Amino acid sequence: MPIFSASQLIDVGTKIFLAAGAPLEEARLVSEFLVKANLAGHDSHGIIRVIQYVNDIEKGIIKPGANIEIVNETPSTAILNGNWGFGQVVAKRAMDLAIEKAKGNAISVVCVYNCNHIGRLADYAVMASENDMIGVVMANSTKIVAPFGGRERMLSTGPICFAFPSYLEFPLVIDIATSVVAEGKVRVALHKGEKIPLGWIIDKDGNPSSNPKDLYDGGAILPLGGDEHGHKGFGLGLAIEILSGILTGAGCAYEETKRGNGVFIEVINVERFMPVEEFKRRVGDLVKVIKGSKTRPGFKEILIPGEPEYLTEKVRLRDGIYVPEKTWEEIVNLAKKLGLSQIP
Amino acid sequence: MPIFSASQLIDVGTKIFLAAGAPLEEARLVSEFLVKANLAGHDSHGIIRVIQYVNDIEKGIIKPGANIEIVNETPSTAILNGNWGFGQVVAKRAMDLAIEKAKGNAISVVCVYNCNHIGRLADYAVMASENDMIGVVMANSTKIVAPFGGRERMLSTGPICFAFPSYLEFPLVIDIATSVVAEGKVRVALHKGEKIPLGWIIDKDGNPSSNPKDLYDGGAILPLGGDEHGHKGFGLGLAIEILSGILTGAGCAYEETKRGNGVFIEVINVERFMPVEEFKRRVGDLVKVIKGSKTRPGFKEILIPGEPEYLTEKVRLRDGIYVPEKTWEEIVNLAKKLGLSQIP
Repeated sequence: MPIFSASQLIDVGTKIFLAAGAPLEEARLVSEFLVKANLAGHDSHGIIRVIQYVNDIEKGIIKPGANIEIVNETPSTAILNGNWGFGQVVAKRAMDLAIEKAKGNAISVVCVYNCNHIGRLADYAVMASENDMIGVVMANSTKIVAPFGGRERMLSTGPICFAFPSYLEFPLVIDIATSVVAEGKVRVALHKGEKIPLGWIIDKDGNPSSNPKDLYDGGAILPLGGDEHGHKGFGLGLAIEILSGILTGAGCAYEETKRGNGVFIEVINVERFMPVEEFKRRVGDLVKVIKGSKTRPGFKEILIPGEPEYLTEKVRLRDGIYVPEKTWEEIVNLAKKLGLSQIP
Repeated sequence: MPIFSASQLIDVGTKIFLAAGAPLEEARLVSEFLVKANLAGHDSHGIIRVIQYVNDIEKGIIKPGANIEIVNETPSTAILNGNWGFGQVVAKRAMDLAIEKAKGNAISVVCVYNCNHIGRLADYAVMASENDMIGVVMANSTKIVAPFGGRERMLSTGPICFAFPSYLEFPLVIDIATSVVAEGKVRVALHKGEKIPLGWIIDKDGNPSSNPKDLYDGGAILPLGGDEHGHKGFGLGLAIEILSGILTGAGCAYEETKRGNGVFIEVINVERFMPVEEFKRRVGDLVKVIKGSKTRPGFKEILIPGEPEYLTEKVRLRDGIYVPEKTWEEIVNLAKKLGLSQIP
């Protein structure tokens, strides 16, 4: 059972991306973002992606070293053309720019198009909260979610993320898909040969299904809220689609040519509204009161958004990151193919 | 069965608020907002509220004619102290200011505190979309929602609203509570003596309940997403609480002194990102593709956010607005008490 430290995996990823033609800085940055996902417990967005990314580089989908262009700019806004570089490189650049603009202008919006898969939104939003600002990130992607009452794929899973500065031990970060579940969860069940709960997906005829295979046979994921309240998840997903797909120029999920992520980033500079210290203290107070309130029967504790990932990270920094045999074998084979020998 | 035209009800409301001491402009504006809610089919936020508002004026909770102060301002942001004027008057002023600021600065944020109940968020968000801008409104209020896994009231229902300009026949506006349901729906069931579906509320011990009375006996509403995905509604509710309760200075739902609405308003000026015509066309295309896609078994059509309210408004503009006998009686008695005779 292969277990590695975060730095070992970052090193492996960096070497592979370098060998695949990426500039060193990009190779390292993308690897760091992938391993951050492993540390947070989101292995589907972790080191396993080097395989796909190298494949995408070979196909010309990802263009390492692409020039990121600012095509439209005001003191508080910008639109970035990622020119199909690594999603992580483009999104990090976009958030850096949004933070700079919010310093001078209290709030900022940066939109991104021609951008590959950026991974977990939380990683960018916390860049803002680490700078005592509020980070908001939304993204769209290819279609997989049905509208409320519909049977056809029309929207992406419509993730939205908020990160807030505070004095809490863990980063307070809300990072959720506005569909019932992210696609990765259905895929995991498929690979394990397990059923999924009714209410996650419909089959191609619009009937509820507990067979994950039905999603990939023309089915769709349902919007958050289920049969009774799915108009809420649908509404949120639609808003996120418009902001990250239309306002950015990245294109909508329903369009056949759609690929990659459209990304909408917003930063709010807290100190333009109130003393940062006071904001952070009040956020912490709110969270502590909630955390300390009574649980429902069946719940051991109230977990705060960002807390489970933080707890997992602590364990994995101590005990290492487990990579499934098969995944590791594929990574080693890929490394060999690229002429690398010094993989752990 | 008393049925009235919108203009009759606006007239009644205006006269009553005038007689209760409100300046004419405020009396008319608040009445218009209330009757807009009736037209949209949201009677719980409609003309029935004149009774409560006059009561609130008498108690000094609502201060008609209050001076709305800008206590903190940058070119793109402001914080408004509503000084406990009518919520509608304060929120409209805040949205007007946000629209002005977004004209000059591409994006704007206006925060509001010391503000009474503002009614439906949609009414303010569409002020932005009618100006070819994107309107976002969030609000907090007193506590009634449990955190995911918790049994105590900690958050408000955390409504969030987005309005987008388009060429559609109806205003595209998403206006949802991030709890499973708004409190009004539970109250309606209570008044009708009906059960509610399991999954809406828990009783004071944290157990699921279908008895609406349990909410008012120390129970709580659940966050959107239910037992399996309630962390999503909880996360969204927490983000909305921080933005509309902490950043605004309005105070958090959990605080014992909390009253009224904290309001977070954001406006994005579309033309600073892309030609408005193109944005509106693309939004319309997206909606039309979704609207025209196949329905699931059991659904007659796919309804778009904002569409049901628009359809109801068309009917009520034609057929009038029905006010329940008992409500009308109370309104007439209130008018008499205030010395008015010319009520229809």
